[in-house]
Amino acid sequence: MSPIPPQRLLDAQQWRYATKVFDAAKRIPATVWSALEQSLILTPTSYGLQPYRFFLVQDAAKRAALLPKSWGQKQVVDCSHYVVFTARTEMKDSDVDRLIQRISAVRGVASGKLESYRGMMLQDVVNGPRGKNAHEWAARQTYIALGNFMTSCAVLGVDACPMEGLEPTAYDEILGLVGSGYATVVACAAGYRADGDKYASLPKVRYETDQILIKV
Amino acid sequence: MSPIPPQRLLDAQQWRYATKVFDAAKRIPATVWSALEQSLILTPTSYGLQPYRFFLVQDAAKRAALLPKSWGQKQVVDCSHYVVFTARTEMKDSDVDRLIQRISAVRGVASGKLESYRGMMLQDVVNGPRGKNAHEWAARQTYIALGNFMTSCAVLGVDACPMEGLEPTAYDEILGLVGSGYATVVACAAGYRADGDKYASLPKVRYETDQILIKV
Repeated sequence: MSPIPPQRLLDAQQWRYATKVFDAAKRIPATVWSALEQSLILTPTSYGLQPYRFFLVQDAAKRAALLPKSWGQKQVVDCSHYVVFTARTEMKDSDVDRLIQRISAVRGVASGKLESYRGMMLQDVVNGPRGKNAHEWAARQTYIALGNFMTSCAVLGVDACPMEGLEPTAYDEILGLVGSGYATVVACAAGYRADGDKYASLPKVRYETDQILIKV
Repeated sequence: MSPIPPQRLLDAQQWRYATKVFDAAKRIPATVWSALEQSLILTPTSYGLQPYRFFLVQDAAKRAALLPKSWGQKQVVDCSHYVVFTARTEMKDSDVDRLIQRISAVRGVASGKLESYRGMMLQDVVNGPRGKNAHEWAARQTYIALGNFMTSCAVLGVDACPMEGLEPTAYDEILGLVGSGYATVVACAAGYRADGDKYASLPKVRYETDQILIKV
């Protein structure tokens, strides 16, 4: 692994912005998208439980249907790749068992040897404090994925716009999620900025460092 | 801005892992940390509201006090830089006004011209649906920061370990957050892995791509 120079990361972070106008003619090349997809899948989550599904909406009719449920924000239809982030609505024993089986298969460990790890997860995210509000816990994990995805886009030179301004229930209906155990929490448009997007050149607004990052 | 090759991002994502054992003698160089700090501050948030504060815990006594409130995970004391992510406990008119003033100052726009933007924020995150559960909304933004931070660490070759296993209330007391309007939601240890950390070489466990990323 060869680290990138720190300034290169900062250049990417300064370059990115919440893209308001996408160039509808520009598509993310397949190799770049493939890396973004893998980067998304490699998102770290609590216990590794990955309590989410990402929906890549390619169908134009579905995108058109989502538009009025997204405060009319045209990024939904103009961007190259539109990803809807959904989170588990509850956490069950079977979610934990699914991970245990996957660990066992990927690492070649007998699942019996993972019994204490299984117990830890069950008493926390299923039957414990986090289990009481499992959807919110899952939504937080999904936001790790969102943060990871936006930074990944930035370093690859892909524009993105996070979309919280949407109607989750309507999204769930359009995407066929009702009753699936997953519910929409947020979305992200990815692609390339249009030449005329005036937001691209506005200075970034962040609070002073000592207001946000406190040393103790 | 010069994008990095997609494979380089994937190499970084494959290289990273939730570091269990940090080399307590290795510190993140100042230039690298400075970039990570700025990257964190540049996190995108809903409306740009930045409803969080990051606490960089440098004081050894505070780290020692946090250890037993972190399920005894030694990353708290052994890592180079320990960041506690806190989120606003509620959202008030003054939070919105603070951002409006900052936009006005940074972009040189009269705050009167931002009145409609101000109204939008107020009717959403203060008085609207998201305002009803403002701490959770703020926590989600904080998790964007966490995701951004971990990916930033990875591309810079810095090891990290997200820490959800902690007692937020105890953290709040130790960090003097009680009554401050901010509350602990998660933490992240950053530094360099110890040679002997057996978790470093374990294969990553992720579900099959078509189980996580669904094309519709």
